[in-house]
Amino acid sequence: MEKISEVLNNIKAVDHSIDAKTQKRLDNLTKPKGSLGKLEELAKQLVAITGNENPSIKNKVIFTMAGDHGVVEEGVSAFPKEVTSQMVYNFLSGGAGINVLARHVGAKVRVVDMGVAIDLDPHDELLIKKINYGTKNISKGPAMSREEAIRSIEAGIEIFEEEFGFGIDIVAAGEMGIGNTTASSAITTVFVDSPVEELTGRGTGISEESFEKKIELIKQAIEINKPNSRDAIDVLSKVGGFEIGGLCGIILAAASKRVPVVVDGFISTAAALIAYHLEPKVKDYLIAAHSSVERGHKLALKHIGITPLLDLDMRLGEGTGAALAISIIESGVKIMIEMASFEDASVSKENR
Amino acid sequence: MEKISEVLNNIKAVDHSIDAKTQKRLDNLTKPKGSLGKLEELAKQLVAITGNENPSIKNKVIFTMAGDHGVVEEGVSAFPKEVTSQMVYNFLSGGAGINVLARHVGAKVRVVDMGVAIDLDPHDELLIKKINYGTKNISKGPAMSREEAIRSIEAGIEIFEEEFGFGIDIVAAGEMGIGNTTASSAITTVFVDSPVEELTGRGTGISEESFEKKIELIKQAIEINKPNSRDAIDVLSKVGGFEIGGLCGIILAAASKRVPVVVDGFISTAAALIAYHLEPKVKDYLIAAHSSVERGHKLALKHIGITPLLDLDMRLGEGTGAALAISIIESGVKIMIEMASFEDASVSKENR
Repeated sequence: MEKISEVLNNIKAVDHSIDAKTQKRLDNLTKPKGSLGKLEELAKQLVAITGNENPSIKNKVIFTMAGDHGVVEEGVSAFPKEVTSQMVYNFLSGGAGINVLARHVGAKVRVVDMGVAIDLDPHDELLIKKINYGTKNISKGPAMSREEAIRSIEAGIEIFEEEFGFGIDIVAAGEMGIGNTTASSAITTVFVDSPVEELTGRGTGISEESFEKKIELIKQAIEINKPNSRDAIDVLSKVGGFEIGGLCGIILAAASKRVPVVVDGFISTAAALIAYHLEPKVKDYLIAAHSSVERGHKLALKHIGITPLLDLDMRLGEGTGAALAISIIESGVKIMIEMASFEDASVSKENR
Repeated sequence: MEKISEVLNNIKAVDHSIDAKTQKRLDNLTKPKGSLGKLEELAKQLVAITGNENPSIKNKVIFTMAGDHGVVEEGVSAFPKEVTSQMVYNFLSGGAGINVLARHVGAKVRVVDMGVAIDLDPHDELLIKKINYGTKNISKGPAMSREEAIRSIEAGIEIFEEEFGFGIDIVAAGEMGIGNTTASSAITTVFVDSPVEELTGRGTGISEESFEKKIELIKQAIEINKPNSRDAIDVLSKVGGFEIGGLCGIILAAASKRVPVVVDGFISTAAALIAYHLEPKVKDYLIAAHSSVERGHKLALKHIGITPLLDLDMRLGEGTGAALAISIIESGVKIMIEMASFEDASVSKENR
C-alpha cells in the first residue's frame, strides 16, 4: 500500500491558470475564435496537464491488460474463457483490432498478463504481472483478497514507471478479459446511483436469457460481498478484476507524472472509477475516448465528470476507442503548434 | 451542360449486394460481431462504393475551393472580404487549419480559386478556375448567371478528373469564402422544409444584430430571386457561390468514378445538396464527416439522409472536419484488411 500512497501523494491538481494564455494563443491562429471546438479544448488540456506550452505527443503508449474472471463459470459471456489467453497471443502477433488501430495512429501496444487463468508461453513483448490465475466467482464471494487488489494496482504503477523511463507522452488504458463487463457493471453499480439494470449491457453479445442472468449475478455479487463505496480498494477486491486493478495503477501513476490518460470503454472507465475514488484529482488528467455501446458507460463517465470525444458504436475494448481518440488529441496539439497566426500569414482579423 | 449530363449519366447506384459478403468477412475477424460499430459500416460502404474487396485508401485528396460573395457588402460576416484571398495564400504556404490536419492524416490539399474577388499571385500549387470575381449580392439579385453556375460545376468536374489521373482513393470537399454560410443557408432553405431561422447560424461568429440582419437578407434573397427547388442549377445560380458549384462538380465527378466523397461542414453540405438534387444516387457515395456547430447543418444532412461520424464542436470549414473523418474511414478499411480471423489466430468463436 506504501507504493500506492506515495503515488496518490504525488498527484497534484491540474493548474488551469495557464488556460487563458493558451486560449489567447489559439485565438491568434488563422481561424475564427473557437472554431476548432474540441481540438482547441484538447490542446488547452494537454498544456495544462503537462505544464508544457508545446506538449510532445510522440510517445503514445496503449496498455492492454488481460485478466480472467471466475464469474464466467456462470455463463455471463458469449465467448468461452480460453479466449482471454488466445487473444493475448493475438495481441502479441499483431492481429487484433487494437494492433491495427494502434499502428494506424502511431501508438505502441504493451500487453500485460495481470491475471490470465493459464501460464502463457513466454514472449519478448509480453509483460507478466500475474496476480493470480483469474479472479474468483464474484457471485459467490470476493473476486480477490484485499492484498491482491493492492498488488494489482501496484503492478500497474510499476509497469507505467518502467515504460515511463523510455518516454510516455500520452497513455491509454485498454483491456481484455472474458467476463469483465460483469465486473465493471458491478463496480459501476457500487459508485453510480443507478439500478444494476441501467448499468449492465450485453458485453460481447449475449442472449436475452443470459442477460437477465448477468443482472441477477451482479445483484447477488453486491449483496454477498457488500463492497464499501467509500473504500475503492474494497470495491476492487470484492467485485473487480486484476486487469482493472492494473489499469487503475496505470491511471494513478500517469496522473502523478502529469501524463494525460485516455480512458477507453466501459471496463477502462471502471478502472478510472476506482482511481477517481482513490484520488478525485485524477479527473483532470483523464480524456474519455468514446461512448461505448455498453450500457452504463455514459453514466460512469458522467459520474467522473468527463465527456466522450467519439461515438462510433464501438464496444470492443482492448484500447481501440482510445487509439482513435489519441489521433484526435494529437491533431488538437498540432493545430496549436503548427498553424500560422494572423500576423505570420498577414490575414486580417475580425471586425471588432 | 453537356459535361454535367455526361457525368450524371455515369453515376450508377451503389451495388449493396456485396454487403453480406463483406459483413461475413468482418464477422470472422477476432472480435465480437459488430463490435467495431461504425468502422465496420465504413469498411462495408467503401467496398460497395469502389467494388473493390480491398479498397485502397492511399491517395487522399482534399479540395479546398475558394470564392467570394457579394452579399458580404451587407455586413454578414465577422471578417472582412479580403480574408478569402489572404486565406488562399495561407493554404498555399501550409499554415491553415486544413494544412495541419491534412498532414496529420496523410492527405493532399488542392487549393482552387473558383471565384476570389481579386487576381491572385500565381503559385505552382494554386489551381485557377475563376468563374468571376466573386458572386453578386444575393439580397439584390442572382448570385451569378445560369451559365456561370454550369461553368462552376463543370470546373469542379474538370479539376477532379485531372487529379483522378494521379490517383484518388477518397476525396473531401472543403472550402473558404467569407460570406458563404449566408449562401449555404439560402440553398438549404430552398431544399429543406424548415424556416430560415432554423437553418442560419453565426458563421465565423457575428453579433446578435448582424445575425438578425443575416436572416432578413436570406429571406430577401429567396423572395427576390425565387430559386426553383426542382432545378438545382437555378438554386446554385440564384443564391449559391462559385466554390459551392465547384464542390458540387467534385462530388458528381467522384460519384461517377466510384470514389467515396467526404462531405465536410455546412457549406460543403450545401454543395452536396445541389449534387443530390441533380442526381439522388450520389447519396450512397457520400460520407458525412462531422456535425458542424453551424445551425442548419444537421437538418441539411438529414435531408440527404446521411449521418455525421464526428461531433467535435467544429465550424471552421476548409475541409478540416473531413480530414479527421478520413482517418476514421481509413481505420475502418484497415481493420477489415489487417485484422486476423478466428482461424488465423486460433481464437475460439462465440458459443452459439
